[in-house]
Amino acid sequence: MSGNTFGNLFSVTNFGESHGPAIGCVIDGCPPGMPLSEADIQPDLDRRRPGTSKFVTQRNEPDAVQILSGVYQGLTTGTPICLLINNTDQRSKDYGDILQTFRPGHADYTYWRKYGLRDPRGGGRSSARLTAPMVAAGAVAKKWLKEKFGTTFVGCMTQIGDVPIGFESWDHVPNNPFFAPVADVSALEDYMNVLRKSGDSCGARLRVVARGVPVGLGQPLFDKIDADIAFAMMGINAVKGVEIGAGFGCVTQKGSTAGDTLTPEGFVGNNAGGVLGGISTGQDIEVSIAVKPTSSILIARDSIDSEGKPTEVITKGRHDPCVGIRATPIAEAMLALVVMEHALQHRAQCGDVVHDFPPIAAAKP
Amino acid sequence: MSGNTFGNLFSVTNFGESHGPAIGCVIDGCPPGMPLSEADIQPDLDRRRPGTSKFVTQRNEPDAVQILSGVYQGLTTGTPICLLINNTDQRSKDYGDILQTFRPGHADYTYWRKYGLRDPRGGGRSSARLTAPMVAAGAVAKKWLKEKFGTTFVGCMTQIGDVPIGFESWDHVPNNPFFAPVADVSALEDYMNVLRKSGDSCGARLRVVARGVPVGLGQPLFDKIDADIAFAMMGINAVKGVEIGAGFGCVTQKGSTAGDTLTPEGFVGNNAGGVLGGISTGQDIEVSIAVKPTSSILIARDSIDSEGKPTEVITKGRHDPCVGIRATPIAEAMLALVVMEHALQHRAQCGDVVHDFPPIAAAKP
Amino acid sequence: MSGNTFGNLFSVTNFGESHGPAIGCVIDGCPPGMPLSEADIQPDLDRRRPGTSKFVTQRNEPDAVQILSGVYQGLTTGTPICLLINNTDQRSKDYGDILQTFRPGHADYTYWRKYGLRDPRGGGRSSARLTAPMVAAGAVAKKWLKEKFGTTFVGCMTQIGDVPIGFESWDHVPNNPFFAPVADVSALEDYMNVLRKSGDSCGARLRVVARGVPVGLGQPLFDKIDADIAFAMMGINAVKGVEIGAGFGCVTQKGSTAGDTLTPEGFVGNNAGGVLGGISTGQDIEVSIAVKPTSSILIARDSIDSEGKPTEVITKGRHDPCVGIRATPIAEAMLALVVMEHALQHRAQCGDVVHDFPPIAAAKP
Amino acid sequence: MSGNTFGNLFSVTNFGESHGPAIGCVIDGCPPGMPLSEADIQPDLDRRRPGTSKFVTQRNEPDAVQILSGVYQGLTTGTPICLLINNTDQRSKDYGDILQTFRPGHADYTYWRKYGLRDPRGGGRSSARLTAPMVAAGAVAKKWLKEKFGTTFVGCMTQIGDVPIGFESWDHVPNNPFFAPVADVSALEDYMNVLRKSGDSCGARLRVVARGVPVGLGQPLFDKIDADIAFAMMGINAVKGVEIGAGFGCVTQKGSTAGDTLTPEGFVGNNAGGVLGGISTGQDIEVSIAVKPTSSILIARDSIDSEGKPTEVITKGRHDPCVGIRATPIAEAMLALVVMEHALQHRAQCGDVVHDFPPIAAAKP
Repeated sequence: MSGNTFGNLFSVTNFGESHGPAIGCVIDGCPPGMPLSEADIQPDLDRRRPGTSKFVTQRNEPDAVQILSGVYQGLTTGTPICLLINNTDQRSKDYGDILQTFRPGHADYTYWRKYGLRDPRGGGRSSARLTAPMVAAGAVAKKWLKEKFGTTFVGCMTQIGDVPIGFESWDHVPNNPFFAPVADVSALEDYMNVLRKSGDSCGARLRVVARGVPVGLGQPLFDKIDADIAFAMMGINAVKGVEIGAGFGCVTQKGSTAGDTLTPEGFVGNNAGGVLGGISTGQDIEVSIAVKPTSSILIARDSIDSEGKPTEVITKGRHDPCVGIRATPIAEAMLALVVMEHALQHRAQCGDVVHDFPPIAAAKP
Repeated sequence: MSGNTFGNLFSVTNFGESHGPAIGCVIDGCPPGMPLSEADIQPDLDRRRPGTSKFVTQRNEPDAVQILSGVYQGLTTGTPICLLINNTDQRSKDYGDILQTFRPGHADYTYWRKYGLRDPRGGGRSSARLTAPMVAAGAVAKKWLKEKFGTTFVGCMTQIGDVPIGFESWDHVPNNPFFAPVADVSALEDYMNVLRKSGDSCGARLRVVARGVPVGLGQPLFDKIDADIAFAMMGINAVKGVEIGAGFGCVTQKGSTAGDTLTPEGFVGNNAGGVLGGISTGQDIEVSIAVKPTSSILIARDSIDSEGKPTEVITKGRHDPCVGIRATPIAEAMLALVVMEHALQHRAQCGDVVHDFPPIAAAKP
Repeated sequence: MSGNTFGNLFSVTNFGESHGPAIGCVIDGCPPGMPLSEADIQPDLDRRRPGTSKFVTQRNEPDAVQILSGVYQGLTTGTPICLLINNTDQRSKDYGDILQTFRPGHADYTYWRKYGLRDPRGGGRSSARLTAPMVAAGAVAKKWLKEKFGTTFVGCMTQIGDVPIGFESWDHVPNNPFFAPVADVSALEDYMNVLRKSGDSCGARLRVVARGVPVGLGQPLFDKIDADIAFAMMGINAVKGVEIGAGFGCVTQKGSTAGDTLTPEGFVGNNAGGVLGGISTGQDIEVSIAVKPTSSILIARDSIDSEGKPTEVITKGRHDPCVGIRATPIAEAMLALVVMEHALQHRAQCGDVVHDFPPIAAAKP
Repeated sequence: MSGNTFGNLFSVTNFGESHGPAIGCVIDGCPPGMPLSEADIQPDLDRRRPGTSKFVTQRNEPDAVQILSGVYQGLTTGTPICLLINNTDQRSKDYGDILQTFRPGHADYTYWRKYGLRDPRGGGRSSARLTAPMVAAGAVAKKWLKEKFGTTFVGCMTQIGDVPIGFESWDHVPNNPFFAPVADVSALEDYMNVLRKSGDSCGARLRVVARGVPVGLGQPLFDKIDADIAFAMMGINAVKGVEIGAGFGCVTQKGSTAGDTLTPEGFVGNNAGGVLGGISTGQDIEVSIAVKPTSSILIARDSIDSEGKPTEVITKGRHDPCVGIRATPIAEAMLALVVMEHALQHRAQCGDVVHDFPPIAAAKP
């Protein structure tokens, strides 16, 4: 409840700071007997890690994960799995100059007001770097869900700044640094090159999908699976909006068209985004999120210092001009953690999960 | 975790079904010594209750709340406060005909799949009627927060179906059945009259604001106050989208303008919606939600029955043509419950809450 | 966490005061599809209720339970089950005289210090009357466990004041007001008659047993099943000691005899009390508890008033001279709630529970 | 809830196995701004660590703790504190021979039944070695409580096997390997030397005391502070019994003497053990626990193998002949964690804690 543990039955307790010796998490509640090694986790970490293109921060972190506990002879034992990731490329001097000032749009100010002190090195605890352990934990959940139900998770960018991104195919996503589902990303590159030269940052819109989710996951009133998804997504750094299925589009819909009709072959359409009454329908779970522009930019901004006196802030150091670019694997991981939690909750309450409803192609491509 | 308790330190456990003998909740963790009576709670329930205009369900429920425990000689004792609301106008026959079929867009199907059985009377547990106890609990939280910090909560409708609603003044909200912040709601009435005649339903967009929230409420990683708000809002029946501050508008913003600058007098602008890094800034907390059209409509829809055979569904009985109309007091209450929870969490971790930052007018009117 | 909810997956939220309008609880997490009616719960409440013999308080309460929610057409729906018990025989005048003083050994003082106020009527929230809803919730857990695994719960008194009680047969327990496993309780009656005339009260020792508990219930480090049992038992009013299996007798045991040997037919002996490493062995779970004397007695005691001035306290009104007498069904119920919680926890983590280990007769008769 | 996190507001998540690369914990909820370094934690770890006398296991572990997060420039930041302890003296070959058999009285069997597999190296997760991170976390809680309220924690052994240990002075406790409060421990040494030669093990009885605990800590119904203490103590490896204050002695007490009278100077006597109605009185909190004999002994025992066939087990390797010897600092730490949790819970619900009641000398020396 102090805000560093995600989930109840598949709980992930996250620790560390951007420039501390290490970051990591402890997974409690992973079912026993599942084969698990670092090799199952590293690929997702590699998708998220910095320094992979000129459009993300140049901080060079291998983000190599180490399993400290919970696995014996290659199998999970049902006891806590501690995942450790060492920090290797801290440059704390980059941050000394902002110790007494507050970046507009950054957590600098609120941390200082809440705790009376803060670790300014790389944003300390508020750094997006702390999403790495969640990506690692998500990989464990993904593996169990895939083996148990065939559930899979995909995500892509649907808009970056002013540039909407169409959908061509999921196959393109791994082939460009933007996680864009299109073959030609030159327009995105051009946009980002101009942005970078200006020293500014931009927002982005992402889509994540869970496929092959069993029917019946979620709780009726609170702990709805879509409520937990909203919680998980809004908890990702810089996210300011979350949609399920038709999302804000539902405002102008009529009930006669918004409700996805049921047929013996399954649902027609997916305005529900795979969730009705907080419980999964067996369709794809469709989520969209809005990621705000990075608050650490090279452009001077008005601000105050810790005495409340007016000052000006320019952020030096290495930053993502668009934190949305690396957010796709993060959002996938958080979605996987929510589905995993509800799979275990459902098993507790209703016994082993049934998965026999014909899943339907998502309404949106 | 079974989904019927909201909050940890100020926890509200909700029970009941639409057509059972009663609904209610148990509030655990209310600080002792606060004056409390039914009169503090009833006004918010009256704002939410059905039958108050021709634009909402005609079910006639006084929604009279009774305090069963936790108050002695007019003061809260620090022990659980049980709030009971009797159901008085059930007409279960209205629902017999849908027992074996599933309304498109409704929880009928998922409840049946999850539990293997369901209470179909008025939607049973999935009915929006179960928001009444939350409105009651929210009134208790509102009272404590107002007395302790001067925190207040307001909400309004910003769009209904295809009709956007401008903002004139909060003063208009109580004067029309739509919670619209405008003097003249004839356009809304005309729209709804046409809709009702068609037997269809429509969506809506709402805005809720928390004012005078202390600085520093929220947790750093998970349990961010905005993540909990997203959880609370997406948990309200029919909500499909949640925004904090600029929300999806942040996608096209630049960092140089998105970050609200700090001045000795406070923040300039409120793109953050009163939350930075998951922690309150002291500004207004600004939330927008999208409410989908009611799934119970008078228009025939294709569906299946519990044998999976094709069938057609028409919903008789009494329903809201736009559940968004009565959702404003619900959203206010849920926002109040989130702020209350975090006020107590903050007090646990950091001691008594300080509230000395000059609050700024919200960016949005 | 505010102390009125027991359990996580099978959670019971308790509310009410001794002299309020009603007491009750909300059970969240009961698996769906189980037949349930008031008739399944009332018998255990009748075993606990006051006024059944001259050796317990003469307060006359039928303790009639009403199911307000969570059951449809005689089956649990998987949604919250609210159980309500009306108070019918309050005599608050009995307590006016102790409003400003503190009974030695009673919670009067600590409640007043914690909350700054208290409900003195019948001890308010601290009354043993609040165990009634737990007995009701325990009956629901007992039913599910019996149907699912054949698990049963028994309890008896093993000592009252200075009088040790031998073990003859469980069959005697229902036949006397002491829950004593002996045919002839005249010695107990004589002891209690003398005690009652003296206006004093006495302690007692009880034993509770869970039979047919599946192997493998419990968590490895914390949330051990025996740790949860200790938590549950020490949470019962007036309990000051808890033992599992050999209990304090293990201090003088040697490892060569304390460890129950395993054979193809099962364990030999049960010093472990059915728990090893916090996890159930499949043997009987054996628990002993110590219940202190009632603090409300007719004998004058030195005390202070709320100004801290010396005073004398005599308790009038109706009280149990030995709260241990009615504690047996309470302890059974709490044990059932712990086993139920762990049965669901185990199902979440490891899938459906296996129960194939030959149970052994308890070491103690 | 998967059993590896202790506490809610001051939560400690424990990970690791006896023979894995490392063990440790993550503390979430430590208030910000407290000076903290490894030097504050190591002394308690040194009191618990093995190899310090011939009466404990000869495994040589420095148990050197490393703070990985949550501290910046020597002060706690309010974010998670990860404490890491590397394992340095594993000898897993010692355990290969018991992989397919079950030690009587050991968790071997139940782990295998629960999870379907187990890490047998040094007992894996069930090893008492996992108490080290709790001692470390307890040291953090002790420091905060001492600085905030002057609360301190002491413990001692009161009986080992057949040898009762009188109480002379707390000053003697640090001067002998038994944590015995007596000047001359030759009788204990003689007893243990004979025991060790026999290859057997024995039980012990310990006493732990919290002094200077504020009045009013604890919750009324469940989460009583004594219930949480019982939970914490029974969760320590090998503990089979827990007493608060008079404990099982209350069975033969009368109400007229059991209830500690109140005077303007404070309570007279402490049969309550510092807790009334689950809430602290401001007196010393007095706890006694029973620790069973070590199940890993050098004497042959009858058992079965994983095929259920009869076999014989002798434990080689290094073991404590009396696990109770090293349990004193563990019990102190767990008691400190409970008091810490309740101090924060109380602050959440009732605001800053008051501590102005004159504490009284414990009834027991």
